[in-house]
Amino acid sequence: MSVAKFFDYVEAHQSDFIDRLRKAVEIPSVSSEAARRPDVVRMSEFLVSELETLGASVETRDVGMQKMHDGTTLKLPPVVLATYGNDPAKKTVLVYGHYDVQPALKEDGWNTDPFTLVEDEEGRLLGRGSTDDKGPILGWINVIEAHKSLGLELPVNLKMCFEGMEESGSEGLDDLILLEAKKYFADVDVVCISDNYWLGTTKPCLTYGLRGVSYFHLSIKGPGRDLHSGVFGGTVHEPMTDLFAVMSNLVAPNGKILIPGIYDQVAPLTEEEERTYDNLAFQMDELHSAVGSKVNIFDSERDILQHRWRYPSLSIHGVEGAFYNAGDKTVVPAKVIGKFSIRSVPDMEPEKITELVKKHIESEFAKLNSKNVLNIECSHAGKPWFATPNHWNYVAAAKAVEKVFNVKPDMTREGGSIPVTLSFQDALNKNVLLLPMGRGDDGAHSINEKLDRSNYIQGIKLLGTYLHEIAEIKAEEQ
Amino acid sequence: MSVAKFFDYVEAHQSDFIDRLRKAVEIPSVSSEAARRPDVVRMSEFLVSELETLGASVETRDVGMQKMHDGTTLKLPPVVLATYGNDPAKKTVLVYGHYDVQPALKEDGWNTDPFTLVEDEEGRLLGRGSTDDKGPILGWINVIEAHKSLGLELPVNLKMCFEGMEESGSEGLDDLILLEAKKYFADVDVVCISDNYWLGTTKPCLTYGLRGVSYFHLSIKGPGRDLHSGVFGGTVHEPMTDLFAVMSNLVAPNGKILIPGIYDQVAPLTEEEERTYDNLAFQMDELHSAVGSKVNIFDSERDILQHRWRYPSLSIHGVEGAFYNAGDKTVVPAKVIGKFSIRSVPDMEPEKITELVKKHIESEFAKLNSKNVLNIECSHAGKPWFATPNHWNYVAAAKAVEKVFNVKPDMTREGGSIPVTLSFQDALNKNVLLLPMGRGDDGAHSINEKLDRSNYIQGIKLLGTYLHEIAEIKAEEQ
Ligand SMILES: [Zn+2]
Ligand SMILES: [Zn+2]
Ligand SMILES: [Zn+2]
Ligand SMILES: [Zn+2]
Repeated sequence: MSVAKFFDYVEAHQSDFIDRLRKAVEIPSVSSEAARRPDVVRMSEFLVSELETLGASVETRDVGMQKMHDGTTLKLPPVVLATYGNDPAKKTVLVYGHYDVQPALKEDGWNTDPFTLVEDEEGRLLGRGSTDDKGPILGWINVIEAHKSLGLELPVNLKMCFEGMEESGSEGLDDLILLEAKKYFADVDVVCISDNYWLGTTKPCLTYGLRGVSYFHLSIKGPGRDLHSGVFGGTVHEPMTDLFAVMSNLVAPNGKILIPGIYDQVAPLTEEEERTYDNLAFQMDELHSAVGSKVNIFDSERDILQHRWRYPSLSIHGVEGAFYNAGDKTVVPAKVIGKFSIRSVPDMEPEKITELVKKHIESEFAKLNSKNVLNIECSHAGKPWFATPNHWNYVAAAKAVEKVFNVKPDMTREGGSIPVTLSFQDALNKNVLLLPMGRGDDGAHSINEKLDRSNYIQGIKLLGTYLHEIAEIKAEEQ
Repeated sequence: MSVAKFFDYVEAHQSDFIDRLRKAVEIPSVSSEAARRPDVVRMSEFLVSELETLGASVETRDVGMQKMHDGTTLKLPPVVLATYGNDPAKKTVLVYGHYDVQPALKEDGWNTDPFTLVEDEEGRLLGRGSTDDKGPILGWINVIEAHKSLGLELPVNLKMCFEGMEESGSEGLDDLILLEAKKYFADVDVVCISDNYWLGTTKPCLTYGLRGVSYFHLSIKGPGRDLHSGVFGGTVHEPMTDLFAVMSNLVAPNGKILIPGIYDQVAPLTEEEERTYDNLAFQMDELHSAVGSKVNIFDSERDILQHRWRYPSLSIHGVEGAFYNAGDKTVVPAKVIGKFSIRSVPDMEPEKITELVKKHIESEFAKLNSKNVLNIECSHAGKPWFATPNHWNYVAAAKAVEKVFNVKPDMTREGGSIPVTLSFQDALNKNVLLLPMGRGDDGAHSINEKLDRSNYIQGIKLLGTYLHEIAEIKAEEQ
């Protein structure tokens, strides 16, 4: 087919597509707030209605109940499964997105009402969920609409999986993916997720790797109750003293992890991989702007990105059980829990990480000769994700980027985790591609979240073209 | 006079005295809760009424307004000033107490309603404020009543200063003390404060020293906002990493302070002082029971008490600005404030402590080569207090203890601070004695606070006898 016709349609219908996004942003589908749960469900109904109007075959799946902190339960929002096209001669592409959003209040510092889509003079579409992840979800729907209106067939069978709990741990989704791996998702050839961002603000990218994360709770308990430092200070082993002694041996101020053996597991940097960092669209200014100050450890963009993407890091998040308010309190906390996590990369294995962490901490604690009691637990372990970036799924996406943007995409990884990526890859055993629509400065979880009009419109073209390029892949390229 | 007559009266009127304490406990004079302020005022009125009935001359002093956290103001409860006797031939004793109490809720774990005085089968008078500090205040009033009923003159002029904000920082009191030092308090010869406790549960004590406290806020800021550890971990200087590195160099797990120069200021332990630790009524079991576990650093009672009373200690209390809840959060906090304090002893000076702390921390931080910004502030500094324990004020009290309990009192110090002690000593330049009524296990700030019936009754005898012994002191002993 002529992509030009499709592009023309998208250009001509910008206002319609933005109206669709406006309607979606107006539904405050905040998954983390119980009171908003009906809005999350309403958002799923909006998607079902849009998809059915376009002729997709849609089902909603009940994924059970959520246990709340207060002991009550709340029905989880449904997972929307939709299929558009069912031709055995075509490839089948599974796309994932989430229709829930982060919380947002005008008082948090938004310049505009977060649940009203506003376009500013620079063409930024401001609103909660605009870029994370309603824009991308509607991108796929817009692609279907354009093809239907033009009387064109989609070049692939499109399967859609849209969840409403991503911002709250994707509760219920993994079970559904496993349940449907050999059923609803049985004929899927490749997976495409549009739920991340360009590295910077100017150049599209394809993302093929994410770091994993292992989260640890290091507890030290001693006294049977909190004590007064006047009465007991100097006479008992204080858990906070021990905690600081042990946890100061986890990571150096230059970011180097001090746990013996950790770096032995890290895949060496090959010359080929080193070259992928040569021309990435990333400037130190962008880091400074994102961080809000100039506390970068490294002076080169290359080092920054390598330490974000392909080396592990260790961060200390806080202490549970100690004094944390403003002001002065002279408490000797009886039991404290230090929280830290390690971002992991290939070929680190969670079990091995936990083993090395425990061994190191137990050995450091033993040196203290303290009568307090130490315990160390890994509370969460997610593996790093790494896809083969020369798989035809990526080749098709790269061609699509060139057709829409006239530029080769950056090949990027990310420092954080998107657990669903691994869930799909492991359950379906198919190549997964992260194909972002928004820019690195969209502020997905911040105030004044936005999606640039051009990213939305070019993004619709990109998603559509990607499907065409998938269809164009010859059998010998697969 | 015959102390026997006074003793007999006290024995015979136990029920009356306990009824007076019952009425006082029933007024929930919690100074830290704005909603209870009228009860605090009501408690002052109760004291005024009791004192006036006995013929004391009473005034209440307005000490101004309290600024609340929410920006509102609240009238401070009055300081009750009372005088009983005004004979220039007699010595004048100033006694201090506080009529406000700690908060208490049955739900906190009390076995009985905290604001109803209940005597259990072991003769414990349970109720909030029973021992801290309503029992001792009423002790003085009971002494006056006994003398008045017996037709006996008090052997000294008694001045009383009862405040209603002690549990909330004694707001307004220091100004009043300074204001009245040369006026209301001008003719005071010695000061007696009954607001602490026996070392253990069996033997009375006189207390002649308290540690001071210097509280520090160590802040480290780096990023302009909280960051996600996935995106930024490994690439920026994290304030928490720096904080742990610096604060792990404050105190060793064996309680030894690691700040160079700190111990140079500590008065050496003399042989004479060493001997005062020979026969103190204190067993390791009591420490274990108070702490709720066996995490004592030292194995001898002597070492424990010396490190509680006459050596400095350093405790780490917590971290402001970091993650502190249960669960996992992958935040890199942008600015964190480590809180720690140093308990100080003679001859440590707050200014010198702060100087040494700053020097040490700045030097440790410099070693880190971090781009983050450090700041260290002393938020509060209270000097240690040390009285001359062979002053006639103590001699009189020791004789009183022997007459009531047939035992020489332990001479003790305490690890905590009672700021009003220093305020009186500095403003009036008179000897101050701490003369406790309750036992070490009374649970002053805990659930099930109690004052043993025998401590209350013997305590009344003790306070009265102390006044008589003060009067007996010969000019040449002074
Ligand atoms: Zn998202
Ligand atoms: Zn998100
Ligand atoms: Zn008290
Ligand atoms: Zn108290």
